[in-house]
Amino acid sequence: MGYAEHFSIANIPFGIASRGSHSKPAPVTRLEDTVFFLADLDLPIDPAITQTFSHPTLNALAALPKSNLRHLRATLQTVLTEPGVVSAHGVPLAQVQMHLPVSVGGFTDFSCSTEHLLNASEAMAGVRSLPPAALHFPVGYGARASSVVVSGTPIARPLGQYYAPDDGEEVVFGPSQAMDYELEMGAIVGPPSTLGEPVAIGDADEHIFGVVLLNDWSARDIQKLEMRPLGPLNGKSFGTTMSPWVVTLEALAPFACAPPPKEFEPKPYLQDKKAESTYDVALEVDVSRGGGRATSVCTARQKWMYWTFRDLVAQQTVNGCSLSTGDVLGTGTVSGVGDGHHGCLLELKKAGGVAPVLAGGEPLVWLRDGDEVRLSGYAGAGVGFGECTGVLKPSRALYT
Amino acid sequence: MGYAEHFSIANIPFGIASRGSHSKPAPVTRLEDTVFFLADLDLPIDPAITQTFSHPTLNALAALPKSNLRHLRATLQTVLTEPGVVSAHGVPLAQVQMHLPVSVGGFTDFSCSTEHLLNASEAMAGVRSLPPAALHFPVGYGARASSVVVSGTPIARPLGQYYAPDDGEEVVFGPSQAMDYELEMGAIVGPPSTLGEPVAIGDADEHIFGVVLLNDWSARDIQKLEMRPLGPLNGKSFGTTMSPWVVTLEALAPFACAPPPKEFEPKPYLQDKKAESTYDVALEVDVSRGGGRATSVCTARQKWMYWTFRDLVAQQTVNGCSLSTGDVLGTGTVSGVGDGHHGCLLELKKAGGVAPVLAGGEPLVWLRDGDEVRLSGYAGAGVGFGECTGVLKPSRALYT
Repeated sequence: MGYAEHFSIANIPFGIASRGSHSKPAPVTRLEDTVFFLADLDLPIDPAITQTFSHPTLNALAALPKSNLRHLRATLQTVLTEPGVVSAHGVPLAQVQMHLPVSVGGFTDFSCSTEHLLNASEAMAGVRSLPPAALHFPVGYGARASSVVVSGTPIARPLGQYYAPDDGEEVVFGPSQAMDYELEMGAIVGPPSTLGEPVAIGDADEHIFGVVLLNDWSARDIQKLEMRPLGPLNGKSFGTTMSPWVVTLEALAPFACAPPPKEFEPKPYLQDKKAESTYDVALEVDVSRGGGRATSVCTARQKWMYWTFRDLVAQQTVNGCSLSTGDVLGTGTVSGVGDGHHGCLLELKKAGGVAPVLAGGEPLVWLRDGDEVRLSGYAGAGVGFGECTGVLKPSRALYT
Repeated sequence: MGYAEHFSIANIPFGIASRGSHSKPAPVTRLEDTVFFLADLDLPIDPAITQTFSHPTLNALAALPKSNLRHLRATLQTVLTEPGVVSAHGVPLAQVQMHLPVSVGGFTDFSCSTEHLLNASEAMAGVRSLPPAALHFPVGYGARASSVVVSGTPIARPLGQYYAPDDGEEVVFGPSQAMDYELEMGAIVGPPSTLGEPVAIGDADEHIFGVVLLNDWSARDIQKLEMRPLGPLNGKSFGTTMSPWVVTLEALAPFACAPPPKEFEPKPYLQDKKAESTYDVALEVDVSRGGGRATSVCTARQKWMYWTFRDLVAQQTVNGCSLSTGDVLGTGTVSGVGDGHHGCLLELKKAGGVAPVLAGGEPLVWLRDGDEVRLSGYAGAGVGFGECTGVLKPSRALYT
């Protein structure tokens, strides 16, 4: 556990929690290992803000103009450091249950990491090449909102059709035999945009409420058979895990930095005048098998990604598509150069890729039932994401 | 206009409308060219049903168990034929505004027509071949819910990146130069399913509230550049038009028929013991250019499609993915053999394909600004879908 150091007064994340006296899920923030129901704090602010504190999701809060949210953040930073507030209103983290922070409207998952695309191409198709559009704009696909769950929710191994492992031609049905995780980040959309009106890249931050970690669980065998030509569907749509704490762009601001230089100049709608348009967040994946000790299997950094959240907002809306509050814009797998920096197991199937070795001495080729996958992310100076965990459960027996 | 004959007492579709005395959108049904606000009818039925009549979308109504909906249908068929009911409660269709019938949760668009897949493959890649999975299960992709609009809403030509028409290599940015429609049908999900629990194909109908027509507007140039390997995104996500009247499975029951025989036996979860698992609905597309006369450019039939709505429910959920009320399961383009039966313009780019000629004498290669596309569908014996229309507007000038 731990992660108290991720949630200093410099963070002030938002989440949804419940406990005895708050049997209904309601908005909370967190300071170290103490949780505060926002409605308990009697904050001296505009009722337009406080009326969102009784909602069962963060959507109403997230939809507030950024000026309101900045005022709320500053007020919380003041109030939570006043004497007696923690003892009067704080609830130990262990006494609350965390829920999915937002009702997810649309969920688009992009591919922001060119390293991931190169490694995945080599692993899936035997050719180390980028998709034709990958340097022109962030490519993505429509992911599934209904199966996004909060950290800690078990994930069942999906059933589906795939090529028999021993025979490249025969298509069989059963539980996936190639279960993978994906280390991702997601931007949560705040104020919506209007259908038919592209959001200029310079205005993108106004539509981003904050950032979460995502584990985009993937069944590689199901995905491989289905994805030509329409992309992944059932290989992904059985479950995505979201971290419970939404870290705002305001908390991440001190960690702003430049993304990698562009290989060539993008079209004007993707030219960002803000140089420090991404954030330096250290990400990690660890896996525990059979209740054993966790093994770190990957470290990566948000700033390695070629495309930024601001790019994703511009790309999603350039054709007139609207953003809704609670939408998730995922980065796709975060990866870097070298086997220790690959954000999913698929990438280690590239030529010469070596699987990490777990605490019990077994190589981690694909996930087994009972494996626990934990993502974490830390920006620095008391600002982090905590963890995003899930245990892989056996498949349902139905049909098998 | 017309279409009164689609809405006999045998139909009883559901929609959402507003007018002067009902300034808020509310559930309605329709008999010929007369609309009835359900809340006005003072129906002698369970309050669990009537409480849904004040909602601004059909979601609450759609989520009712099928037994409730069958009771509502039978009651409406009785009440609407009682003397004086039309004069007391009927509102002329021309006096109401129709709205999107449901709040769309998830939207998955499948490819149910093998003819469409063959023609599109030939047009896009020069090879007439089915995707590897197409006969094993319905392939699909996550489509965009936020840009689904009701019939009559104009659609703006999207901006995006694509290969310059005269040069196969250069990527340019601007308004799409290859605008297309797609003739589709969509099942609207009623009662939700549980995450992690596949819906057996025999139970699929319990989760389908009804059926609509969909025009899945497509920008073929944008789609072509982006879709490898993750599938279509911006080439589709700018707008999908939905017909305003949801025709229930109960109304379609007399038109149930068998789908085409399977090329080979599907996996058990797609083996449907119900032989008459699809419906015989005649579909048509017509296009008017510059306010001119409408030209019929395509006829097709629902029953030509290889996969059924029941198959889509089974496929979407077999991996544990949950269905939410208001989800849309789209069929993809409905097509048959022969140029006159291709549900989109892309397919006519196959070898030897001939574009239809519009009333003014011009061939319909791609859509022009101002073109109006109208889909219609009729099952027979007073049961039809009416129309699903949209006019293509010029692109926004932003960035161009």
